[in-house]
Amino acid sequence: MDRTVGRLWFHFSAVYLITAYICSLLYYEYDYISSKRIDYFCSSKPLFHQFTILVRAIPASAGRNISDSVENFFTEYHPSTYLAHTVVHRTSKLRGLINDAKTHYRRLVRLQSNPSQINSNRGSCFGLFRRKVDLVDRYGKRLGDIEQHLRLEQSQVSSAGKEVPAAFVSFKSRYGAAIAMHMQQSNNPIHWVTEQAPEPHDVYWPFFSSTFMQRWISKLGVAVACFLLTALFFIPVLIVQGLTNLNQLQIWFPFLKSILTITFISQILTGYLPSLILQLFLKMVPPVMECLSSIQGYISLSDIKKSACFKVLWFTIWNVFFATVFSGTALLQLSLVFEPKTIPTRLAVAVPAQASFFIAYVVTSGWTSSLSELINLFALISSLVTKPFSGNSDEELEVPSIPYHQDIPRILFFVLLGITYFFLAPLIVPFLLVYFGLEYIVYRNQFINVYAPKYETGGKFWPIAHSCIVFSLVLMHAIAVGIFTLKGLPLASSLLVPLPILTLLFNDYCRKRFLPNFSAYSAETLIKKDRADENDPTMAEFLDKLVTAYADPALMPVSFTATADSLRRPLMSTAED
Amino acid sequence: MDRTVGRLWFHFSAVYLITAYICSLLYYEYDYISSKRIDYFCSSKPLFHQFTILVRAIPASAGRNISDSVENFFTEYHPSTYLAHTVVHRTSKLRGLINDAKTHYRRLVRLQSNPSQINSNRGSCFGLFRRKVDLVDRYGKRLGDIEQHLRLEQSQVSSAGKEVPAAFVSFKSRYGAAIAMHMQQSNNPIHWVTEQAPEPHDVYWPFFSSTFMQRWISKLGVAVACFLLTALFFIPVLIVQGLTNLNQLQIWFPFLKSILTITFISQILTGYLPSLILQLFLKMVPPVMECLSSIQGYISLSDIKKSACFKVLWFTIWNVFFATVFSGTALLQLSLVFEPKTIPTRLAVAVPAQASFFIAYVVTSGWTSSLSELINLFALISSLVTKPFSGNSDEELEVPSIPYHQDIPRILFFVLLGITYFFLAPLIVPFLLVYFGLEYIVYRNQFINVYAPKYETGGKFWPIAHSCIVFSLVLMHAIAVGIFTLKGLPLASSLLVPLPILTLLFNDYCRKRFLPNFSAYSAETLIKKDRADENDPTMAEFLDKLVTAYADPALMPVSFTATADSLRRPLMSTAED
Repeated sequence: MDRTVGRLWFHFSAVYLITAYICSLLYYEYDYISSKRIDYFCSSKPLFHQFTILVRAIPASAGRNISDSVENFFTEYHPSTYLAHTVVHRTSKLRGLINDAKTHYRRLVRLQSNPSQINSNRGSCFGLFRRKVDLVDRYGKRLGDIEQHLRLEQSQVSSAGKEVPAAFVSFKSRYGAAIAMHMQQSNNPIHWVTEQAPEPHDVYWPFFSSTFMQRWISKLGVAVACFLLTALFFIPVLIVQGLTNLNQLQIWFPFLKSILTITFISQILTGYLPSLILQLFLKMVPPVMECLSSIQGYISLSDIKKSACFKVLWFTIWNVFFATVFSGTALLQLSLVFEPKTIPTRLAVAVPAQASFFIAYVVTSGWTSSLSELINLFALISSLVTKPFSGNSDEELEVPSIPYHQDIPRILFFVLLGITYFFLAPLIVPFLLVYFGLEYIVYRNQFINVYAPKYETGGKFWPIAHSCIVFSLVLMHAIAVGIFTLKGLPLASSLLVPLPILTLLFNDYCRKRFLPNFSAYSAETLIKKDRADENDPTMAEFLDKLVTAYADPALMPVSFTATADSLRRPLMSTAED
Repeated sequence: MDRTVGRLWFHFSAVYLITAYICSLLYYEYDYISSKRIDYFCSSKPLFHQFTILVRAIPASAGRNISDSVENFFTEYHPSTYLAHTVVHRTSKLRGLINDAKTHYRRLVRLQSNPSQINSNRGSCFGLFRRKVDLVDRYGKRLGDIEQHLRLEQSQVSSAGKEVPAAFVSFKSRYGAAIAMHMQQSNNPIHWVTEQAPEPHDVYWPFFSSTFMQRWISKLGVAVACFLLTALFFIPVLIVQGLTNLNQLQIWFPFLKSILTITFISQILTGYLPSLILQLFLKMVPPVMECLSSIQGYISLSDIKKSACFKVLWFTIWNVFFATVFSGTALLQLSLVFEPKTIPTRLAVAVPAQASFFIAYVVTSGWTSSLSELINLFALISSLVTKPFSGNSDEELEVPSIPYHQDIPRILFFVLLGITYFFLAPLIVPFLLVYFGLEYIVYRNQFINVYAPKYETGGKFWPIAHSCIVFSLVLMHAIAVGIFTLKGLPLASSLLVPLPILTLLFNDYCRKRFLPNFSAYSAETLIKKDRADENDPTMAEFLDKLVTAYADPALMPVSFTATADSLRRPLMSTAED
């Protein structure tokens, strides 16, 4: 008994030491990334988004359109730094038309690009050749019609109404843009709301919610939807899993009866089918969360990914960690929130019991996921399936970007497992080390050889990782407090209580010390950078380009019919998906 | 039974209606006060604090003092708007010397100002006269010494070290100051921390915590102290109250035995002594909270009062409302926090039971406090006591300022009582109406005839009142939910659940719509105001004055000995308490 107590005190000091060690690592990492951010900014060429802000909720004024209002406002209040602006337009219809035109154009190209096929068929089957020529004509004509319609619509959209009360406003200097961004512009704080503009190709044009109320309501709606999805996710999963037991399958698919009676197959089915269903449901979560984030009023793809990453992370922690630990229904878990006092002891009972499950999880889910990342299973299958049907698909090959919102939560979840289980089941540590080693190798390769970054993240995902690790630490402390209470060491558990408080204070300090650098740059940096550019002869040219940098691609002039002849060029120089 | 249910549904709709009504009132009031703030700013003359910011946590640089660092930094990064700066010095020793000098000077003045007394005494009592002349000489000499010491110390403080890494930095325009305030200045967000400067006479010089860490730690310490004070306040009170029962008194003061046996006196004692003790303890709270706020790192008296007001408010709500309602020890109340689910039903049981107590409370504490405010009982007594001993005290009469941190929480507490009890015990409403009527008349008089404002609050207390009223509404909803559950109307209580959520959303909206206007002014307003001043011929003179406006009064040249002869002038033109 005395030895057990001794071992518990050993665990106690391990908890303190590991917390201190992880916190110091977190501190240096935050410091490193935040200084990297500044270094990157200082060494960057002039970029459009550094000189531009997005202004939303531009108030309507009588007898004046949005563009005039913006022009007036900024020439009035920022005369020395204001450069130009681009009002956002409602272009969902245009985007539909452009996609339509694109599809037709692609078909046309495919038909025209196979002249050999047409030639070879000429002799053998005249009727088929006739049909092809007809098709080329028909598609060509329809493409012309659509283009006509598109141009008409474009001129209507850009001249008449359909202005969204939002605009990209560009400035002559980075500091000028930053001043306009940081200062409250109008007496009504929910008008002329400013924020940093994203890179031009990072702008998410489709859902451009503009007024304050729209954004507020959509944010609330999305928060409720996320909460419900996270809390009630397990109900449909459990129902579907319940439906797939052997008897049910035999009733639904009577012809399987003979196969299902084979012990080996029935064992595999009962063993893996529920887990397969769970994995499929879980695979659906990141896209769903991304979709929810996209209607939340973010203006850039990168912000949408970041928000989705956060949502997926908490979803994973709740639905994989807590659901497994308490192995109960969602409603039972929710009741936990209403009795915070009992959380440590409940955790202390439930968490150690699942240690072997999570060790197995590291192997089955962790190792396999990093290997499947390497062969990109989904992309491979979908490519194999679609390639034979899509003709000359090598032209359309798009380099994939990194699915941050899918990978970061998974890796962070394994960090959480490591932190919570290292003293309960130290056996998990080597498995995790192997996992992280694998991930390191795999992602090094993926970053260098496979993925092409679509936008510069600027280290903005780190605060999510930081807060997740701090949460893991506090969770680990709660479990430790519960365990020491259960094992009859109330002194140890009371001595542990300061630890989560200190950790949260550490987190608060880090937020104040580093987080501001992740949302904006300091006056010092901006002014230095602006001064360095003053003597740059290319700046005049850059500012000329900046004026039109934030034009909506849907409003650009299009000419598919003209390019339809020159086939080997890139598909569209004007529109992007 | 059916009628009771009907009445409950009547209450149900009353809860909805009153909430909607109060929220609309709150909205219009917030709107009104925030527009008043802007109007006041727009119509104000140039004021020093509009052009000045306080910079704290100025990093030490080798071989350069703080003043040079500030000068360098702002001429480097704000060359067009920077005007001047005043570094803060550690002057607590100087303030001690000045107070010492003041006391001696006052004594000297008092001795010299009674020449009639001296003259009349000349014949009758030569010895006494001699003693007086000696005293005048001695005080004069000591005053001279102190002044010598003071000047030496002043020159030391201002020339050599003792610089606090904080400075008031003045700008040529309001907009320039606002830009410097809103932008993060340095790459390290906890260096060069800026905030709006208070009015020069509102600066709280004594506790000038400067570095980020100092402020952070003192803030945490004060938060813990406040929490402990609020949570454990009742323990000493209960102990003292327990000590003052009749038997205990008879044991301690045996000579009272004969008096205490008189029924009338014993009734008064048992009835009023505990409540008197409670009142005395409660009277001590605002000064204690003010003291705590003053070491929290605020730079202005007005901020200290505002923070103290907030602290006293929550103290009152917790220790008067909740302690009375649950009539238990502090620990019992704390356990409430750990079981949030049971709060509504617990409140529903406990709150209605105290209705008659709180109606009586409105009369005994509310009505009397507004009347005692009118006669200013404490000030009257202290004046009556001290006047005979202080000699010519009419010179020292200082017009009192409004004790916001004492009066606002009291009034808000009665608002809370009104909101929580209006549907449980409508009888409280007329009493409260009388109370508010009285307060209106009394404070109208006090504001016009009694108090002199020491600083401009700028409506900054309203957000506290707003959030207190929103809290009262949510508390009322919790009670209503509990009551409908207890009375067997689960439908009504579930239908009430959206109400607190809607109220909190309303609060969130108000925070976003109005609160930013309470901490800063918009670019629009500032630039308009600056432009209006451009043509003002007095601006040059104003900017000259601004350069020295934020000098520490303790570093001003003093000359008591010179002014010691001219007696009827104000005591000190340089230093203020």
